[in-house]
Amino acid sequence: MTIKDVKIVPIGIIHTPFTLNDKIPRQGSFSKETEGHIELYDPYIDGLLDLDTFTHAILIFYFHKSKFSELVQKPKRGNKPHGIFATRTPQRPSGIGNSIVEIKQINDNIIRFFGADMIDGTPLLDIKPYISDFDSYPHASRGWLEDAWRK
Amino acid sequence: MTIKDVKIVPIGIIHTPFTLNDKIPRQGSFSKETEGHIELYDPYIDGLLDLDTFTHAILIFYFHKSKFSELVQKPKRGNKPHGIFATRTPQRPSGIGNSIVEIKQINDNIIRFFGADMIDGTPLLDIKPYISDFDSYPHASRGWLEDAWRK
Repeated sequence: MTIKDVKIVPIGIIHTPFTLNDKIPRQGSFSKETEGHIELYDPYIDGLLDLDTFTHAILIFYFHKSKFSELVQKPKRGNKPHGIFATRTPQRPSGIGNSIVEIKQINDNIIRFFGADMIDGTPLLDIKPYISDFDSYPHASRGWLEDAWRK
Repeated sequence: MTIKDVKIVPIGIIHTPFTLNDKIPRQGSFSKETEGHIELYDPYIDGLLDLDTFTHAILIFYFHKSKFSELVQKPKRGNKPHGIFATRTPQRPSGIGNSIVEIKQINDNIIRFFGADMIDGTPLLDIKPYISDFDSYPHASRGWLEDAWRK
């Protein structure tokens, strides 16, 4: 059985200082000091229990201001086109984004974090604890970015 | 404007040796040698250009065999209940899973990888290159797992 489509309901909204697309840093690691906060919708608050025992979290969100158009794109970095599955462009078939953020403080349904790299008002789809045993591969290659960054 | 729900169309299907829920390793890092392969749907093939320059990729997929039920769960590891946003349970409001895998080989629309930890037939929603500068935080805390793993 093939699943035709999946309906996902946002669990909250992400607030950041970024209101225009072109001011948004490419990834959270370039904006480790930029603060944002999640406003988790009330029905989900109980799900936060013990999230504050972690230093980092994975935010899964929806690029609601981006539309998928081309499978091959020329990123701002470098001048060669690359397949979108080899880039982190927001213009993806799924429209799903993921960023690692540093948890600063959790108060009721408000989660303050560092590493904001998404547009203000971004719909939040999921929060997962970042667990370095599963998620950290410091020696992973940088692929085509290695050359592009050197230039 | 609040977005009520998001419709996401799978871009492929993930094949793994795991056909029953209880045989599935908790995370890819416990099954780094377990091979799986992605069957990307034909319309998306061009998006793979240069993915083979990376050693690792992030797979975003849908836990199609899991249903969200409780916001607080007692994981198999440890005996205390935790909020689901502080665990990696498949039973999440979003139903979204993410795993880091090691790319073995890409041939046309077939991507062979190591680190399979999902059930056979899992719908694939997205592939992103793993970029350690953005994604690797080796010193992130293990949160409540630190104690649970010690026991």
